Amino acid sequence: MKIVMVGEAATHRDALSAALDFPAQFIALPREAHESDAWDDQIEGADVLVSMRFKRRSPAPAFRLLHVPGAGLDGIDFTALPAGATVCNVFEHEIPMAEYALACMLEHQVELAALRARFSTEQWTHAYLKRQPRGELFGKTVVIVGFGRIGHAVASRAQAFGLHVIAISARAKAGRVDGPMDEAYTPAELDQVLPRADFVILTCPLDERTRGSFAAAQFAAMRPDAVLINIARAAVVDPHALYHALRDNLIAKAYLDVWYRYPSGDTDLVAPADYRFEDLPNAYCTPHASGWTQGLFERRYAFIAANINRLHQGQPLQNVVTNPNRV
Amino acid sequence: MKIVMVGEAATHRDALSAALDFPAQFIALPREAHESDAWDDQIEGADVLVSMRFKRRSPAPAFRLLHVPGAGLDGIDFTALPAGATVCNVFEHEIPMAEYALACMLEHQVELAALRARFSTEQWTHAYLKRQPRGELFGKTVVIVGFGRIGHAVASRAQAFGLHVIAISARAKAGRVDGPMDEAYTPAELDQVLPRADFVILTCPLDERTRGSFAAAQFAAMRPDAVLINIARAAVVDPHALYHALRDNLIAKAYLDVWYRYPSGDTDLVAPADYRFEDLPNAYCTPHASGWTQGLFERRYAFIAANINRLHQGQPLQNVVTNPNRV
Repeated sequence: MKIVMVGEAATHRDALSAALDFPAQFIALPREAHESDAWDDQIEGADVLVSMRFKRRSPAPAFRLLHVPGAGLDGIDFTALPAGATVCNVFEHEIPMAEYALACMLEHQVELAALRARFSTEQWTHAYLKRQPRGELFGKTVVIVGFGRIGHAVASRAQAFGLHVIAISARAKAGRVDGPMDEAYTPAELDQVLPRADFVILTCPLDERTRGSFAAAQFAAMRPDAVLINIARAAVVDPHALYHALRDNLIAKAYLDVWYRYPSGDTDLVAPADYRFEDLPNAYCTPHASGWTQGLFERRYAFIAANINRLHQGQPLQNVVTNPNRV
Repeated sequence: MKIVMVGEAATHRDALSAALDFPAQFIALPREAHESDAWDDQIEGADVLVSMRFKRRSPAPAFRLLHVPGAGLDGIDFTALPAGATVCNVFEHEIPMAEYALACMLEHQVELAALRARFSTEQWTHAYLKRQPRGELFGKTVVIVGFGRIGHAVASRAQAFGLHVIAISARAKAGRVDGPMDEAYTPAELDQVLPRADFVILTCPLDERTRGSFAAAQFAAMRPDAVLINIARAAVVDPHALYHALRDNLIAKAYLDVWYRYPSGDTDLVAPADYRFEDLPNAYCTPHASGWTQGLFERRYAFIAANINRLHQGQPLQNVVTNPNRV
C-alpha cells in the first residue's frame, strides 16, 4: 500500500506506520504539493493521501482515499478530486480547543499575568492592601455558536464553572439540540440572544451559510463588556466589522486564534489579515494554536491508522464525508 | 446596635448597612486596630466587630460578636477574646478560588501569553508553520490537599476537564470523603500519592497539624514536571524547602498566591517572605488575589448582614466557630 503524506502530516509518519497492521510504502511531500501539480507523479496511484488541503487546476492524480488529518473541510476542493476518491476526516481536537477556550475566558476574568506583574517584595504592602476585586465566570452567560463536538466540549466545562450556556445550532429549529446547554436557538435567532452574552464563542464550521455571518449587526448587538472568542475559522467573521468593533470598543475584547490567510510554505510571507489586529490592545491574537497538542496527534493518527487498516481489509471506513457545499 | 468595622472590612459598610433590617451605628477603624489597644474605647460595648484579625496583649474591650469576613481563623487569637464573645466566619470564596486554581492550571498548560507573544503579522508564516504542540489537562492527575468547600469547588471543575482527582482529607480514614473525587487518602498517605501528581493544590486550613507540613520530603516525592498551587496559607509550606525545590527544579513550577508575612498597615513595608520568590522564573507569584472578587464581597456581606439580623432578633447565628487549635 502506498501512503503519501503532505506537509505537516508527514512529520507523523512514524506514529502512523507503527499503528498499521501491515507494511506500507511512505512518501513525504512538501506542503506546496496540496495545490501544485509538481509532485503529481509521486501521488499518482496512491492508496492514501494524508493532507489538510487539496486543490488542482489541472486533472488530479489518481488516489483512493484522501484522509484529512483534521476536522475542517474548507481546504478541500471536492470538485478537484479524482474519480472514485473517498474523503475521511478526523476530530479529537474538541479537548484541546475546549481547554484553549476556557483558558481565554479565565485569562479575561482572572488576569493572572497582570496579578503577577503587580507582585514584588518591594511592592508587597501596596499590592496587597490595594487589591482590586475582579469578576467571576460564575453566573455569567456564554453563547456558543455551532454546537457540535467542540461546542459540547466547551459547554460541559463552562457549566462546571456555573456559566449559563446558550447553544446556537440549526438543529434548534426542530428542538433536536442535545448536550450540555441551558437554552438553544437557531442561527436566525442569534441576534436576539447576543445582548445577553458575556462571552461569544465561535465553534461552527466554515461553509456557505456561515462565511461572513458574524458582521456589523452582530457586533452592534453585543454588549461593550462582552468578549468574542473565535476558534472556528476567521472567515466566519467579517474582518472589517471585527476590526472596527475592537477599535471603537463596541466589544471589550476578542481572542483570535484563526486567520484569514495561511502560508502555503516557508517562503510564503502572507499576512494573516488585512488589518494588524495585534496592534489593538483588546485583540488577543494567537497563531492557530487552540487545537495543537501532543494528545491531539496521538488520538488523530491512531484514528487514521485504524481507518487505513480498514481500507486494507476491505472494511467500511469511519468519518467518510461528502462535499459540505453541494446543494 | 453598634457595629465596628476594621480595615478593609470598613469599605463594605454601605453594603452591610443596606442589608440590615434595622438602623445601626457604624464605626470604621484602621487596620491596626486589630492588634493595638489605641482604639479600644471605640470598640468597647460593640455588638459586632467585623475584622479578619484580632489580637491583644492587654485585656480586650467588650463586644458580643466577632464576625470574621473570611474563612481563615489563623488571624484570630481566641485566647484574647473578651468573655462571652461569639466568633462567626463566612465562606463564599470557593468560587473565585476555584476559578483562580483552574486559571493557573490552564495558564501552565496552554501558555496563552507565550502564544500571544509569538504572533505578529511579520512572524505569521514562521509562527504558524513552527507551532509546537502543548500538553493537555485531559487525563492528568490533580492531588487536592484539604477537601473542604474550596477543594470540592476545584475538584468539580477539574473533573469537567477530564482530570483525575485525588483528595487528601483526614476524613478518608473513616471512608467518609464525599464530593467530586476519584480517590481519597489521609494526610499520612500523601507522600505515597505525590509521585502520581501532575498538579498539587493546597486548599487546607492552617492549623497546628498543617503548619510546615509540606516540606522537603514532599517536594522530593513530587515529579520534576509537577506543579504546586498554593491558595491555602503560605505557612503550610516550609519556605526553605519551597525555595530550593524551585531553584533546583525538583518541581516544574509553583503558583504562589499566599505569603508568609502581611502588612499591618500602609506604612508596614514588610517582606512577603525571607526569599525573593519572584526572582525565580518558575515561581508565579500573585498578591493573595485568588479569592478577591466582587461576587465574593456581595455574597459575604449579605451573609454577615443576615447573621447580624439574627443577632438583633435573638435567633441562632450561622457559622459559629470555636478555637480550631484547642485540644
